[in-house]
Amino acid sequence: MKIGIIGTGMVGATLGSKLVQLGHEVKMGSRTANNENAVEWAKSNGSKASAGTFSDAAAFGDVIFNCTAGGVSLNALKLAGSENLKGKVLVDVANPLDFSKGMPPTLTVCNTDSIGEQIQRTFPDVKVVKSLNTMNCKVMVEPSVVPGDSSIFLAGNDAGAKEKVRGILESFGWKAGTIIDLGDITASRGTEMVLPLWMRLYGLYPNQSFNFRIVK
Amino acid sequence: MKIGIIGTGMVGATLGSKLVQLGHEVKMGSRTANNENAVEWAKSNGSKASAGTFSDAAAFGDVIFNCTAGGVSLNALKLAGSENLKGKVLVDVANPLDFSKGMPPTLTVCNTDSIGEQIQRTFPDVKVVKSLNTMNCKVMVEPSVVPGDSSIFLAGNDAGAKEKVRGILESFGWKAGTIIDLGDITASRGTEMVLPLWMRLYGLYPNQSFNFRIVK
Repeated sequence: MKIGIIGTGMVGATLGSKLVQLGHEVKMGSRTANNENAVEWAKSNGSKASAGTFSDAAAFGDVIFNCTAGGVSLNALKLAGSENLKGKVLVDVANPLDFSKGMPPTLTVCNTDSIGEQIQRTFPDVKVVKSLNTMNCKVMVEPSVVPGDSSIFLAGNDAGAKEKVRGILESFGWKAGTIIDLGDITASRGTEMVLPLWMRLYGLYPNQSFNFRIVK
Repeated sequence: MKIGIIGTGMVGATLGSKLVQLGHEVKMGSRTANNENAVEWAKSNGSKASAGTFSDAAAFGDVIFNCTAGGVSLNALKLAGSENLKGKVLVDVANPLDFSKGMPPTLTVCNTDSIGEQIQRTFPDVKVVKSLNTMNCKVMVEPSVVPGDSSIFLAGNDAGAKEKVRGILESFGWKAGTIIDLGDITASRGTEMVLPLWMRLYGLYPNQSFNFRIVK
């Protein structure tokens, strides 16, 4: 599969590297064509990895991962271009964390809206699937770093897109029974709003190898 | 121990009955002295159970449980009277769910504040401990209805008050390792903000016998 990564931080690099390891071709996009992180990432991940602009990455990918900070996601995706995203599956991993007022961070949007919904509203022709945003990126791509099974959530309006993302999650090592489909994209509110609890738990377990498990 | 329950809904009744079963004396308080739910609850729970006003229940208890809906908690506790609450441990079980605009519910307060913090600010002489609010009331008083261990959170500014609440939780059946102290009362934001995710999971698992487990 051809995959575009929007964002050059640790989340984008970790997801991108895992996807390359799984045999996909991955282009990491940033604001500029020669972002140092992106070029370095591409160099260290072999011939299936490449770097470019947001627009290049969006045009390249059949599936796009939004790995930007939530507060700048809409802007980055506008730069990526609605014509390049149209009809594609966009996995939204962003969280609206605002650290600008100190700790603990607050959310830039919550309660009656979410980053996932904002993206879906802004790009109605894109199949947005919210997932992966409730854990550290090490856990995202290797769920076994957390002992025993833990849970991962899906939210989105397009059933086929969610099935596609489910397949990618399973290729990361998520067992079928640990993937919980919460419903439409408005469920993004729920998964983004667990971040304040996640941040508290991070204070207790700084190695970040923890996760939520829904037991029933 | 003498315990006052503020609120006559299912949460208050379930906690009150469990506390009576454990040998405590429990007074359930409501706006009026003869609330039908409270009188009925007292009658069916034997000689250690009684009913009265919010103020009666607050004066009676050494430990107080706030089991009102989050949107009316401050008002109910003002009726209970700061002089009756002063110096006591108040376990805040409330969630700020607002169903008035339809489903899914929104929160009346979140992100930069919480019900737990509002109560602590309004009653600075009360030792507020946020707990129990992240699960159905059946699970609160009998954690084994969820298979395997699940997690319960504590938040509050007073270490001694949290120890007291931890003891009550253990008497309900919560194992020591499943009780997670998140820190001061501002951590109430985190536990109240998981409710939108909880509501989505409730849609999937309507028997409500589910809970969050933190795995690490």
